[in-house]
Amino acid sequence: MSKVDVWQKLSLFNDYWNPRIVGELNGQCVKLAKFKGEFVWHKHDAEDELFYVLDGVLTIEFRDREVTLMPNELIVVPRGVEHRPVAKEEVSVMLFEPSATLNTGDAQGSLTRNSLEKI
Amino acid sequence: MSKVDVWQKLSLFNDYWNPRIVGELNGQCVKLAKFKGEFVWHKHDAEDELFYVLDGVLTIEFRDREVTLMPNELIVVPRGVEHRPVAKEEVSVMLFEPSATLNTGDAQGSLTRNSLEKI
Repeated sequence: MSKVDVWQKLSLFNDYWNPRIVGELNGQCVKLAKFKGEFVWHKHDAEDELFYVLDGVLTIEFRDREVTLMPNELIVVPRGVEHRPVAKEEVSVMLFEPSATLNTGDAQGSLTRNSLEKI
Repeated sequence: MSKVDVWQKLSLFNDYWNPRIVGELNGQCVKLAKFKGEFVWHKHDAEDELFYVLDGVLTIEFRDREVTLMPNELIVVPRGVEHRPVAKEEVSVMLFEPSATLNTGDAQGSLTRNSLEKI
């Protein structure tokens, strides 16, 4: 039971779209990730997903609109809702979601990370 | 499905030890709270609890030690572990825990909040 310094953890990696696990509770994970560019359209059939922006600007595109998040803003994307994260410049994000959530949801491919590193 | 501006939500209340719900996902709640002073010793028998400090300094006392959290630091307190949050000065905190979690856990009393406001 140690504390987690979020900025220190973020300094440990520089690759994009590859979330790391920094905490686990109640079957959920706290993950940190850096995004840049356009991710793939996907949805999670059984899991709601929270994005909390720590640094930078993150747009979550939906099929009918988009939401732009500044630092210290969050959104919960409900299960089943197609979405695509887009970041023109690098953004650092905290994610809350079930341990089993796959980053690309139902759109498995080259960006899929099956086994996440714990840092 | 709207975004949540954490600082704007925190500006809506000024009382201590009275968490507000700002998001729900997967049976868990995202809560915001302000703490000042010493809370009660308590534990949650069936729920792990996450504290993420947004502003200020928060000490979590355990029976055998204490952990002091600065902004952008978090800790997961596992179920069953007695703890007491203490803040010499006002601190703003994000909590992540199951919807059913009672703020005072097994130590119900004057500080217990049975029904949390959603903001």
